[in-house]
Amino acid sequence: MYKVDKQNVIYNFTPFMESKLTVPSGGLVQFESNDCFFQQVLTEQDLVHEIDQDRLNPATGPVYVKDAEPGDILKVDILAIDIAESGCSAVVPGAGVLGDKVNEAIVRIIPIVNGQADFLSHKIPTAPMIGVIGVAPHEEDGSWPTATPWKHGGNMDTKEVKVGTTLYFDVNQPGALFALGDCHAIMGDGEVCFTGLEIPADVTVRLTVIKSNQPIGWPLLETEKEIMLIASGDTIELASKEAVAPIVQVLSKLHNISWEEAYIMASLVVDVRISQLVDPKMTVRAAVSKHYLTAEQFLQNL
Amino acid sequence: MYKVDKQNVIYNFTPFMESKLTVPSGGLVQFESNDCFFQQVLTEQDLVHEIDQDRLNPATGPVYVKDAEPGDILKVDILAIDIAESGCSAVVPGAGVLGDKVNEAIVRIIPIVNGQADFLSHKIPTAPMIGVIGVAPHEEDGSWPTATPWKHGGNMDTKEVKVGTTLYFDVNQPGALFALGDCHAIMGDGEVCFTGLEIPADVTVRLTVIKSNQPIGWPLLETEKEIMLIASGDTIELASKEAVAPIVQVLSKLHNISWEEAYIMASLVVDVRISQLVDPKMTVRAAVSKHYLTAEQFLQNL
Repeated sequence: MYKVDKQNVIYNFTPFMESKLTVPSGGLVQFESNDCFFQQVLTEQDLVHEIDQDRLNPATGPVYVKDAEPGDILKVDILAIDIAESGCSAVVPGAGVLGDKVNEAIVRIIPIVNGQADFLSHKIPTAPMIGVIGVAPHEEDGSWPTATPWKHGGNMDTKEVKVGTTLYFDVNQPGALFALGDCHAIMGDGEVCFTGLEIPADVTVRLTVIKSNQPIGWPLLETEKEIMLIASGDTIELASKEAVAPIVQVLSKLHNISWEEAYIMASLVVDVRISQLVDPKMTVRAAVSKHYLTAEQFLQNL
Repeated sequence: MYKVDKQNVIYNFTPFMESKLTVPSGGLVQFESNDCFFQQVLTEQDLVHEIDQDRLNPATGPVYVKDAEPGDILKVDILAIDIAESGCSAVVPGAGVLGDKVNEAIVRIIPIVNGQADFLSHKIPTAPMIGVIGVAPHEEDGSWPTATPWKHGGNMDTKEVKVGTTLYFDVNQPGALFALGDCHAIMGDGEVCFTGLEIPADVTVRLTVIKSNQPIGWPLLETEKEIMLIASGDTIELASKEAVAPIVQVLSKLHNISWEEAYIMASLVVDVRISQLVDPKMTVRAAVSKHYLTAEQFLQNL
C-alpha cells in the first residue's frame, strides 16, 4: 500500500499541481487527512476566526496515477475512513443557514467513543465521510480553492461519499492529480451550521484509470443501490439543473426514448438531494436507482 | 366513515371558506381526490396547455372539524391512498428544472398494473403520496391558490406525505377547514419535470384536534423514524432557513443547551431535503430522527 502523509497538502486544486507520489492504476493508497482546520482547533478556546485562515480545508496529495490521460475517468473506490478519537464542530456569526441568528462564536470538542460522537452527553452514531475530494481541474476551469466544490470535485460535502462507495472523476490532466481531506465523523444533509463533526482520518482508496473518450462533466458517485451525479452552483436551483440534465440525456439515449419522455421518467425516479447549503457554491446530488441506470450504463451513454 | 365526493373542491385555500362536511374530532374521513388536471387529460392528445386552466390542482373539501379552534393543532393520520388504475405525466415548454430544453409539450398516459407504473415498458413500483393538503390560512397570510405551498400546507409535493405518516397543522380558523387532492402514484424529490404520476385516488385520513396554545408555524410531518418540518419559500435557501430555525430553537429548549450548541447539533443530525423545485414556491423538509426529537417533544417545546 502507498501512503501520503498529512504534511503533504494543497489548498487549491489547480490544473498544474506538483504531485507528491506516483502510483500505478489499481494501486491502494492511504491518505492521512487533516481536519478542515489543520488541527488548529484543539480546545474550546481555539475559536475559528482567530486561527490562521490560510490553513483551512487542506487536502492531502496530490497523487499522480500512471496512465491517466486527459479524457480518461479516474475511479476511486473508498475502502476505509478511520477517524481519530476526537473532533470538533464550530459556529461563527454569519455562517451557515441561520448565520444571522448566531450571537457568539463557539467551538465544541467532541470525543468519539465506541463509534458514537459524545455531544453534550448525546450519543450520536458516527457515519464517516470525506468532505473534500477531487482531481486537477481542466485548464479552462482554472484553479479552485479546496473550500469550493466544482466539476473537478473539491468541497462537495456529500455525506454519501463514504466507505463502500465509488467516485468517478473526469481526468483533466496527466496523472489525474488526486487529493482528499476534510473528513467528517457525521454530518446532516445541508451541513446547516457550516461545520460537520470535523476530524482527522486515515482514508484508504483504490485509484483506477478507466480509458474513455467521453467526459462526465461532474463527479459521479456509485453506492450500493444508486448512482448520483454531484453538481454545484451559486444556488441549489442552478446546481439542480446541472445534476439533472446529463441524467435525462443518458436515460433518453439508453432507453431510446425522446428527451421529453426521459424528462418525465426523471421526474418519477430521480431524487434531487441537498448535499450542502453553506460552502462558496452549493451542492446537490441527483440520485437514481441502479434498477433504472447503472454507472456502467451512464458512462457508456454520455 | 364520513365521505367527501370529488365534485366538492376548492382552488384556493382562503381564511373564510364554506365547509362541505362537518365531522367530530377523531373522525375517519374518505376524500375522493381528483388528479391535478381534474381528469381533463385522459389521452395523449389532451395537452396540458390546451385544457381549462381554471380547473388545475383541485383539493377536495374543506371539512369542518368540530372543536377545532384557532391556536389548536389538527393531527392528520394518513391511513389509505387508493390510487386509480391509470394516471398521467406531462411536460410543457418552460416548465420544471430543465424547462428551457423542452421542445414540445407531451402527455404520457401511464397505467398502474399490480402496483407498478408501466411507463414505456419500464415497471416503476408505485409509492402513492398526497401533493396538496392543508387547512384554512390565518387571515394575516391571506388566500393561497391550491397550486402554492405555504404555512397552511397546500401544494407541498412532499413524497413522504404517504400512508402511515401523520401531519400536524396549525388551526387558523374555526373547524380548521381541511382539504386535500393532487395525489401522485410516484414522484422523485424535486419533481423535476413539474409533474409526478398524476392520478385520482381515494384518501382516508383521521382528523383529530389537539388542544394547544403554541403555533408550529409550518406543517410538521411524522414518519416511522423521523419528524420533518415542511417549509416553502421563493428559493430553496429561504425555505431551508424557515425549516431549520424552529428545530434549532426546540433542540435548545428541550435539551437545555445554548442556541449555538443546538445549531451545531442540527448540523450533525438534521437532513434538509428537497421536496419540490417546480411550484410557485419551493419546498424543503428538515428531517430529524425521533431518537433526538419526537413530535410530542417538538410540540411541547415550541
